[in-house]
Amino acid sequence: MKVRAMVCHAPGAPLVLEELDLDPPAAGEVLIEIMASGLCHSDLGQIEGTAAPFPFPVVVGHEGAGIVRATGPGVTGLAVGDHVVPLSLAECGECTACQSGCTNLCDRFMAELGTQTPRFRLGGRPVATYAGVGSLAQFIVMPERNVARIRADVQFHLACTVGCAVATGVGAVRNTARVTPGTSVAVFGLGGIGLNVVQGARLAGASVIIGVDRNPAREASAAAFGLTHFIPADGPDPVAAIRTLTAGGADYSFECVGSTRTMQQALSATRPGWGCCTVLGVPPDGEALAIIPFELQLGRTLLGSFMGNIKGRSELPALLDLFASGQLNLADLVTHRLPMAEVNAGFMLMKSGAALRVVVSFQE
Amino acid sequence: MKVRAMVCHAPGAPLVLEELDLDPPAAGEVLIEIMASGLCHSDLGQIEGTAAPFPFPVVVGHEGAGIVRATGPGVTGLAVGDHVVPLSLAECGECTACQSGCTNLCDRFMAELGTQTPRFRLGGRPVATYAGVGSLAQFIVMPERNVARIRADVQFHLACTVGCAVATGVGAVRNTARVTPGTSVAVFGLGGIGLNVVQGARLAGASVIIGVDRNPAREASAAAFGLTHFIPADGPDPVAAIRTLTAGGADYSFECVGSTRTMQQALSATRPGWGCCTVLGVPPDGEALAIIPFELQLGRTLLGSFMGNIKGRSELPALLDLFASGQLNLADLVTHRLPMAEVNAGFMLMKSGAALRVVVSFQE
Repeated sequence: MKVRAMVCHAPGAPLVLEELDLDPPAAGEVLIEIMASGLCHSDLGQIEGTAAPFPFPVVVGHEGAGIVRATGPGVTGLAVGDHVVPLSLAECGECTACQSGCTNLCDRFMAELGTQTPRFRLGGRPVATYAGVGSLAQFIVMPERNVARIRADVQFHLACTVGCAVATGVGAVRNTARVTPGTSVAVFGLGGIGLNVVQGARLAGASVIIGVDRNPAREASAAAFGLTHFIPADGPDPVAAIRTLTAGGADYSFECVGSTRTMQQALSATRPGWGCCTVLGVPPDGEALAIIPFELQLGRTLLGSFMGNIKGRSELPALLDLFASGQLNLADLVTHRLPMAEVNAGFMLMKSGAALRVVVSFQE
Repeated sequence: MKVRAMVCHAPGAPLVLEELDLDPPAAGEVLIEIMASGLCHSDLGQIEGTAAPFPFPVVVGHEGAGIVRATGPGVTGLAVGDHVVPLSLAECGECTACQSGCTNLCDRFMAELGTQTPRFRLGGRPVATYAGVGSLAQFIVMPERNVARIRADVQFHLACTVGCAVATGVGAVRNTARVTPGTSVAVFGLGGIGLNVVQGARLAGASVIIGVDRNPAREASAAAFGLTHFIPADGPDPVAAIRTLTAGGADYSFECVGSTRTMQQALSATRPGWGCCTVLGVPPDGEALAIIPFELQLGRTLLGSFMGNIKGRSELPALLDLFASGQLNLADLVTHRLPMAEVNAGFMLMKSGAALRVVVSFQE
């Protein structure tokens, strides 16, 4: 079928509307009509070519929500009309990893990483999809194991955010760092991921939640998610300020910027003895984080996770139950809704810091 | 008083016998006659100047065992005649850290790090002590909070090893990584620390214990501690060999070499999803470990510990109970015993790989 999609043809080029050919769903696959798609800094890394694991031309977007419009042979868990979130991270449910209870990194996903056959073509030539999703399109085709069915009573422009920002932030607090009540948490970067770390920390019962950002407007934004203290990133010494606020260092820190320098700060800002730093940001391709091993030998832990270590099909939909019961704030996260034709402006809003989450749609 | 000690006057210089002035024990301090002292690679880093946090001249040695010969005013927990192990790491028992149940990094130790007044003098000028101990001496003076009382039925040349190698290795397995039964463990470097990681992993019930070393003789040595597989460090690809042996990566890895390159290998050799890498080696001063954050975001954890996160006074002595009940092998660890006059040769034996642990003494 012919579908409209926003295509990035080369690093740094603006997205342009193209009509692509899309394969029909094969065995085990479904066709999804995308109703809304959030914009993420990692999409921008691909577009700008700084953190671009996928070849060009490419359809970016990996935080979508939509409706199943057709199913291929052998699909048993999804039906036409289901509301769904497509997942970059498969959950086959059968492999060692899926059955371990320890990780969301499906062995099947790991084995297939980077080997997927593109389903979009332009003039007969393949067009890649960022993170295996490519949700800046009218329709996409996904394997059933890469699709989460969600409750139908959440608006798509809110539901889509659980597909990346909410899962990554809230999941990192609950499933990766496992923040405990009464502790202190420092969050570097108060964007889409960072704000969800903040509200995850609030849900976990942290008593001190410190945000570090160079944008002073984020202090007020983050307060709606549970922030208790704000430190300007360009102040004299954010690490020292955190140590002072926490009498020696935060129990937990989270890096949500994608800068290896900020990652170093986040590690140093944790308390010797038991400080735990989780890195979530995506730095430029090939950029390494340099740490002095003695910082770890002072009893610190450094970790990371992918999508907050939340299993996409079996665990991610429950995030929307938290929203429905009033425990998760999604409304204040989505500051801008734009028609797809304005997607390039949407990325600029995000980059400038004027927007928290921008959600775009071909429906508007 | 006048005491004999081996002094390193400058980076790279051999240790020379000197007669030093030693202050008597002040309030809260004890005088210890050192009966045996193990040699450690970190002493060698100080001597050679590659990882030398203390100024020269310096008395190295931090793995000692001895007898309390005098106590200063206010000492309540130790008496003349007690068998003891001096501790680089204090345990005051009263600070937030000591009472947390989470760490052995006493706040008092952290606050005083690098600020201790040397007790040795040569010609009126201060002589530093490595790690605040300096056990290559006849006598040392230590604060009571830096001294563990041990059972008196273990020979000093075996007892001393718990002061560094055994605590660091066994503790890292039990208290830092918390290895669980039935798992796979990869140990990079089968020296004094690495062999104790091996026996710690055996005690923890690991089912696969893989050692990586460039010295092929270590395969047989490590078998006595519980090693199940050996991989030559200079073989084609030790990381790939570990992945093959463990069907995807070790559940746990430990770096006991002190090389940032080996640390990278140890991290990569762990399984995505839940692999846990603990760095114990001491690299050259200022050398940073460079890691690609995505390696962590694939669900791996990187950590470290100091003295195996074992509290010196309240927990370390129990290691000798494990020895007494036949669960810890110390006899095969101490391959060489030398009189103090041969300490330089002892360091060469260690450096060449001919020795596992060399123990020296002024008593022999």
